[in-house]
Amino acid sequence: MGKTIAEKIISEHVGRDVNSGDIVVAKVDIAMVQDGTGPLAVDEFCTMGFDVLKAPNSILFIDHASPSPRKELSNAQKKLRDFSKKTGAILSDIGEGVSHQILVEKYVKPGDLVVGADSHTCTSGALGAFATGMGSTDVALAFGLGKVWLKVPASLKFVLNGKIPDGVFSKDIILHIIGLIGADGANYKVMEFEGEVIEQISQEARFTITNMAIEAGAKSGIIAPDEKTRAFLRAYGRESDYREIKSDPDAVYEKIYEIDVSNLEPAVALPHTVDNTKSISEVEGIKIDQVFIGTCTNGRLEDLRVAASILKGREKHPDVRLIVIPASKEVYLKALEEGLIKIFVESGATVLAPGCGPCVGVHQGVLGDGERVLSTQNRNFKGRMGNPKAEIFLASPATAAASAITGKITDPRKFLA
Amino acid sequence: MGKTIAEKIISEHVGRDVNSGDIVVAKVDIAMVQDGTGPLAVDEFCTMGFDVLKAPNSILFIDHASPSPRKELSNAQKKLRDFSKKTGAILSDIGEGVSHQILVEKYVKPGDLVVGADSHTCTSGALGAFATGMGSTDVALAFGLGKVWLKVPASLKFVLNGKIPDGVFSKDIILHIIGLIGADGANYKVMEFEGEVIEQISQEARFTITNMAIEAGAKSGIIAPDEKTRAFLRAYGRESDYREIKSDPDAVYEKIYEIDVSNLEPAVALPHTVDNTKSISEVEGIKIDQVFIGTCTNGRLEDLRVAASILKGREKHPDVRLIVIPASKEVYLKALEEGLIKIFVESGATVLAPGCGPCVGVHQGVLGDGERVLSTQNRNFKGRMGNPKAEIFLASPATAAASAITGKITDPRKFLA
Repeated sequence: MGKTIAEKIISEHVGRDVNSGDIVVAKVDIAMVQDGTGPLAVDEFCTMGFDVLKAPNSILFIDHASPSPRKELSNAQKKLRDFSKKTGAILSDIGEGVSHQILVEKYVKPGDLVVGADSHTCTSGALGAFATGMGSTDVALAFGLGKVWLKVPASLKFVLNGKIPDGVFSKDIILHIIGLIGADGANYKVMEFEGEVIEQISQEARFTITNMAIEAGAKSGIIAPDEKTRAFLRAYGRESDYREIKSDPDAVYEKIYEIDVSNLEPAVALPHTVDNTKSISEVEGIKIDQVFIGTCTNGRLEDLRVAASILKGREKHPDVRLIVIPASKEVYLKALEEGLIKIFVESGATVLAPGCGPCVGVHQGVLGDGERVLSTQNRNFKGRMGNPKAEIFLASPATAAASAITGKITDPRKFLA
Repeated sequence: MGKTIAEKIISEHVGRDVNSGDIVVAKVDIAMVQDGTGPLAVDEFCTMGFDVLKAPNSILFIDHASPSPRKELSNAQKKLRDFSKKTGAILSDIGEGVSHQILVEKYVKPGDLVVGADSHTCTSGALGAFATGMGSTDVALAFGLGKVWLKVPASLKFVLNGKIPDGVFSKDIILHIIGLIGADGANYKVMEFEGEVIEQISQEARFTITNMAIEAGAKSGIIAPDEKTRAFLRAYGRESDYREIKSDPDAVYEKIYEIDVSNLEPAVALPHTVDNTKSISEVEGIKIDQVFIGTCTNGRLEDLRVAASILKGREKHPDVRLIVIPASKEVYLKALEEGLIKIFVESGATVLAPGCGPCVGVHQGVLGDGERVLSTQNRNFKGRMGNPKAEIFLASPATAAASAITGKITDPRKFLA
């Protein structure tokens, strides 16, 4: 019986053939925490009596509250820095960027098994890795044992065909899919994406898709690596990390979705669930107070380029605060070199240092009561951005940039040449 | 009897000759609040029954918690935005920069009377204005009446002579002066600065000096405008705002200090008071955890240039977080154009958007317990930066940059060619 990519990767990490439904103990290549989940993982690591790291890469990211807005968080971050010094865990400190972006730039290889104490760890799946979010205690165990237990998930296949219309981006496609199958539509499954559309889009755009797999409840999102993956790794000096891995033709899927994107419109997820997705034409004109372009979902160079192409020579609406945050230092430096940062600042944007920014609600743009934000992030749960009396709308960087100019939700095709 | 600049300016705004000690009601040219003090001022303005702004410039700056780290602050900022819409008060929103820098770039003229609900309003005094910090209620009255009451302060004269040694900057000079006269050495007086040193230094460097007058308890700091002031205003398209105003030769000073700077060393103010000033040679080698370059004291282009000249091609110490924040959008864009932002990011700095940053302790770099920061800001009171268990050292941008590289307090002359 053929295997899916997920089954293949997990089999390699267990040391025998495993299939969906099996409960296994698997080796991990990368285990990571961030400053929200890390302090508990460090405590658990010590409580369980570990003192040596066994995962090949154990990484501590300070990205969620970076730089720290409160002394309690500063002390929690200090705990991570001290742990790094004591154990040799890799530390990615303030200013370096969002964990998920740094993982794909520097660490994750096709075929890897990655566990992270952060729900959007699934982002790395677009490199052909099995990458999943786990709790702090599970990741503490991965630090200490180099292994985790998990149930091998069944896979759902999403075959994306057709030609992507102008003004529609991978963010719109994944929002559409989540709207279609619902926020629990892929609970504990792997969402595997393939088809003409995946071949058409860039490696960067693929990360946006796998990043949001968890928003349909998936254990992970995954895309078979190809020449675009190889080129991406090459750009980061890691071509030798490339390998092929793909599902067998007779692999078993719990369900196969065939989706034609040719007639899709730009999409917007309305408050307060990600699957509350509408086409732009249904929601145009809703007044907004803030726009945020960034995050592990849409803070990459390609995203910033699209946003800058719309904002260039234009000013944000005076009633809107526009916040732009590159996902990593690499992205920031490239955006600097290409003149994108200048375009943003001249358009009236507040450009902050690489990190999660206001996405997680602890600083850098918390909303007032009754305010609305249009964000390129992945999640719009009530209170997500720090104020349960605010409303979060999700969209692509193009829609975000266009809306920043008009002060209301706007079809980006009006600004794209 | 001759008059000091302060007496002259206040006389002009009262409409008759006044002298130090007189209690007067004076017209104001500019009244301002920030997001910490502004919400109370707005409430008081409404409670007192005002609805029309009478000050020629009534300005609301959102710089202290920018962008907002907490919903309570977001709601307070929303109050300022709503007040601006209702009354026409000028709003300077997130990303624009620190009030005191924007005031000198865009608004304050020699001879102006400026009141601000922020203690470092005295910064503008280097343009030859009488600029002073007041409480929220006083500024609310200034908004509503276009006038304030005050006691005309007596003046102290600081004659600064000699040649500034290499590696010594205006920050070192003002720290030295405050160390000399003490944190209450100028209580409710005007500190008027003149002499060869003032003539030598740039207009930007002068702002650093008047900015810190309040740290000796002064009502204001002031410097007679000259050709450098004119050139500064010209650079911001405001040469027509220039006028001469200076103290009469027979003006009465309560005390005259003559200070020769020729043998000064770089200075550092130790925790927890600004007058706890030492020479760099007395404190070199103290380990630090964070360096902050920015603020209304030292976040100007000249400051960033000096810091960048030291950081260029070097990396910050791995145990130090380095935070850099240009004081205004103007400064940021110029620093971008000159390649300074790139130098900072490449050296490992976290560059944030224009604003007060961690100086006021509400976000963007709060320290952990027992940590030490070397900052270019003006105030090192216990808890100032959000954690009373942390220690704040004050120094020039050169000393800050040098110390960021070594991880301990370092004489910048080791890095300056």
